[in-house]
Amino acid sequence: MEPSSGSRHAGPAVPPVAAVLPAGGSGERLGGATPKQFCAVQGRPLVSYTVRAMERIDWISNIIVVVSSENIEKMKSIIEKYGHKRVVVVQGGVTRHRSIFNGLKVFAENEFSDHLLQKPEVVIIHDAVRPFVEEDILSKVVMAAKEHGAAGAIRPLVSTVIASAADGSLDHSLERARYRASEMPQAFLFDIIYEAYQKCTDYDLDYGTECLHLALKYCETNAKLVEGTADLWKVTYKRDLYAAESIIKDNLSQQVCVLTDVREAVAQVGLLLHESLKSQIKVEAVSTALSKNDSHLRNILSGQCYNFVCVNDKKCVIQETQQLVDMLEKSNIPLLYPVVLILVHLDISENISVSFGMEEIIRIKKFAGEVKKKNILVYGLLIQYK
Amino acid sequence: MEPSSGSRHAGPAVPPVAAVLPAGGSGERLGGATPKQFCAVQGRPLVSYTVRAMERIDWISNIIVVVSSENIEKMKSIIEKYGHKRVVVVQGGVTRHRSIFNGLKVFAENEFSDHLLQKPEVVIIHDAVRPFVEEDILSKVVMAAKEHGAAGAIRPLVSTVIASAADGSLDHSLERARYRASEMPQAFLFDIIYEAYQKCTDYDLDYGTECLHLALKYCETNAKLVEGTADLWKVTYKRDLYAAESIIKDNLSQQVCVLTDVREAVAQVGLLLHESLKSQIKVEAVSTALSKNDSHLRNILSGQCYNFVCVNDKKCVIQETQQLVDMLEKSNIPLLYPVVLILVHLDISENISVSFGMEEIIRIKKFAGEVKKKNILVYGLLIQYK
Repeated sequence: MEPSSGSRHAGPAVPPVAAVLPAGGSGERLGGATPKQFCAVQGRPLVSYTVRAMERIDWISNIIVVVSSENIEKMKSIIEKYGHKRVVVVQGGVTRHRSIFNGLKVFAENEFSDHLLQKPEVVIIHDAVRPFVEEDILSKVVMAAKEHGAAGAIRPLVSTVIASAADGSLDHSLERARYRASEMPQAFLFDIIYEAYQKCTDYDLDYGTECLHLALKYCETNAKLVEGTADLWKVTYKRDLYAAESIIKDNLSQQVCVLTDVREAVAQVGLLLHESLKSQIKVEAVSTALSKNDSHLRNILSGQCYNFVCVNDKKCVIQETQQLVDMLEKSNIPLLYPVVLILVHLDISENISVSFGMEEIIRIKKFAGEVKKKNILVYGLLIQYK
Repeated sequence: MEPSSGSRHAGPAVPPVAAVLPAGGSGERLGGATPKQFCAVQGRPLVSYTVRAMERIDWISNIIVVVSSENIEKMKSIIEKYGHKRVVVVQGGVTRHRSIFNGLKVFAENEFSDHLLQKPEVVIIHDAVRPFVEEDILSKVVMAAKEHGAAGAIRPLVSTVIASAADGSLDHSLERARYRASEMPQAFLFDIIYEAYQKCTDYDLDYGTECLHLALKYCETNAKLVEGTADLWKVTYKRDLYAAESIIKDNLSQQVCVLTDVREAVAQVGLLLHESLKSQIKVEAVSTALSKNDSHLRNILSGQCYNFVCVNDKKCVIQETQQLVDMLEKSNIPLLYPVVLILVHLDISENISVSFGMEEIIRIKKFAGEVKKKNILVYGLLIQYK
């Protein structure tokens, strides 16, 4: 999966891969005033999801977000608010190509001297409005770019493509099977794409749309084309925002982490829960004493799990939950969605009234109220188990 | 708007326009077992929305839905369940072109002798998976087809189109501005498209995708290209089903019909309501005594309005609502969504307890329970107004 393992930790610290995200679009096609990359999806700007998709991949050293001058402050506040790391905001040009070129200059020129970054071997170019990019395709285009100099994701055409005559009538149609839609991400050896941008004409910069074309035209580099998955699509119209929202909601409900105490009776219930849930959704199961800072659990926390079921039989339910909340905070991952914690308190004592009193319930309610401000939702469940 | 007014009512009864909806696709790209045209959107199969979009246009005489043999019964039951009219189900071929050709044969050959239909002057071809087609674009392509022999809706390309070389590398990219995506609906003089299908090769029938191409190649007819709106898109992937669902929900909440009694005090409240709502949503206002079978109201009922606010000051609230429910039933329009009726009973008497007693409230609750089975939701509201 990781295209550059070793090179980052051994030898000189050359960051091998960086990413440039053009986010300068005006969003005309959405028919709204807000450019699409800044539209809220589940309360969070679209660009933040895309940055997050890049940021969780640890072999991408720098993420350059290129925005129009009027949106620089907005973008900076998004980075601040959602705790994005390794991101540099750069002012774009009047066209897509000019914006990407500006993004690349950060690694090569003194124009942006206060954040001249170390030149990467490979640079990924990806649209800010394609939030669902996975590590797999990023890795594939990076590998292919290392070998071929340039690479890009492609998809089958959904509609037939036609050329129109000057009078608005059909001139000819293209045979659909012979052509592909050029999508993102694309990746390039930095030196190739930078040279292509330096050599290309003003006409290219003003009217072109395709980076692969520039690499071919100015550096004779035939890009390797990599079949991408359907989720690479570009949020272009309002309907795409609807789709993005539904996909995000769907992803959210698709995984849960079951945490159980190591004690036998509790672990048994955790196992039952795990077995019965796993046919429906992705379930991780962790037997742990939370205080031990379990490394498996840490990985789950940073792996974007947002639903937890904690099964225990201790009286100190809140302390355990507090520990989980602390770990979530310390893990310092940007939380895209509310985290749901369901506390299952297993009562294996004889006397129900003693084990879980009103005081405890009031304390849990108070605690739930506090952590809600941190975007964490706590629910309690009491099960008698014998 | 109506491309053939007159010709239907005057002279011989030649139906001028028919529509063929290929619905034979296997839905591979959705990654699910159900072909996309049969996927439920808000509980109703997608194809039913598209049929409904055609059926509400009264100048389209026949709607031919072409499905694969295994889905004929399913399609027939959809037509039955949702009360679709003027629809004929035809068995498709193994490819899109063969299916469309089968659909056209209904008007020209005895192969489907039990429902040989009168040949239309113009035939619309539209995908079953493009449910949001509006009368405006249908009318435009029909008009253009009458004049030019063939016409089709086009959209700007969202992605650059590229040609790949045999080794999977980039051969060349097309200049995006010079090309367009060919979308649906398309329309043809029947004789032209039928001749094109009769003349074309097996290769065309098996590997082609573009009807406009056949008209050009075999009948030397350069189709007129008509700019379509963004809502013509084709439901192809799962995300498109999400988008379709959101659009349908959105459309639902976008219009309301305010019905008011003709009495002055009531009409005044209706007007206030109308004024305050109209900046948010589309509002129709009708001052009417419901018993009079107002023709304007009938038009609204069949024009797909699903939200009604009835303002009155009569004691016979239920009778009035009953009349509206009866009219909805008699209008015989397929109800895509639940109809919401909000009864605003305006109390302009001095004595609140007399004008709207507990008995009346109980009767409304009972009535609401009954009509709920008919997919009509009734809510009551009591306002004191002096």
